[in-house]
Amino acid sequence: MEWLDVDTELCPVQRTLDVVGEKWTFLILRDAANGVRRFDEFRRHLGVSEAVLSTRLRKLLDSGILRTETYQEPGARTRLEYRLTRKGWDLWPVLIALRQWGDTYAGEEPGPVLDLRHKDCGGEVRVAVECADGHGELGPREVSARPGPGARAR
Amino acid sequence: MEWLDVDTELCPVQRTLDVVGEKWTFLILRDAANGVRRFDEFRRHLGVSEAVLSTRLRKLLDSGILRTETYQEPGARTRLEYRLTRKGWDLWPVLIALRQWGDTYAGEEPGPVLDLRHKDCGGEVRVAVECADGHGELGPREVSARPGPGARAR
Repeated sequence: MEWLDVDTELCPVQRTLDVVGEKWTFLILRDAANGVRRFDEFRRHLGVSEAVLSTRLRKLLDSGILRTETYQEPGARTRLEYRLTRKGWDLWPVLIALRQWGDTYAGEEPGPVLDLRHKDCGGEVRVAVECADGHGELGPREVSARPGPGARAR
Repeated sequence: MEWLDVDTELCPVQRTLDVVGEKWTFLILRDAANGVRRFDEFRRHLGVSEAVLSTRLRKLLDSGILRTETYQEPGARTRLEYRLTRKGWDLWPVLIALRQWGDTYAGEEPGPVLDLRHKDCGGEVRVAVECADGHGELGPREVSARPGPGARAR
């Protein structure tokens, strides 16, 4: 079976994009990974409408990517905070990969907007495609792509 | 400066999403990385309208992510093929990261739709966030994130 004959409904890239494949959703995840937790903070920082933000947060909650926790400011009523779940944090490599491309191709002097560093050594943080058997970083030419056991014909 | 005070217009994640942050665009890139090159092949495989596909391809060409090459079938007029540029292939880690999450959280029995393997050893292919100074794979807790030299206040 060739790639063109494979039914893409089951493609994991497509399924991931069905959940998070929308610009505001990625930006909510970016902000959540950077410690933003409250509805009004997301709204102001992203410059997104309340309606769009509510819809996107709802979808992320329903997908188990965000969870809520309650908080209460003195004298105010109880409100919700939004936090990444484990499933949500597992999207972190996607964010780092998007960032890396942007830093390379859409970067501005005088340098990165957000400085990511390995806490222990201060080294820069990067994303790499690699061999799970420990043979280091791989480029597209070193990888074979064939329809797998889950591939169905269109 | 806190993250909430940073002007996100210059954020590399945001800038990358300005170019590719749309589901059809990602799927075009996925298909291009899997060897799809011709307009009609993209259209049929993705199930996308001609109008949407044309717009997305135009944007990817204008951004230097795809380039065209001419081809000619016997007896037919000259047509265009679409191929990833180096800049386009540098989005490959984003695709692998999306795929990895989908395989983990939206996978189906009996296994992956597309089987990616290190050609040399047959090992599985994965994406990892790592320290550029060689200290191996990093998780979010091992990384510090601070506004960088390019950060501007909102």
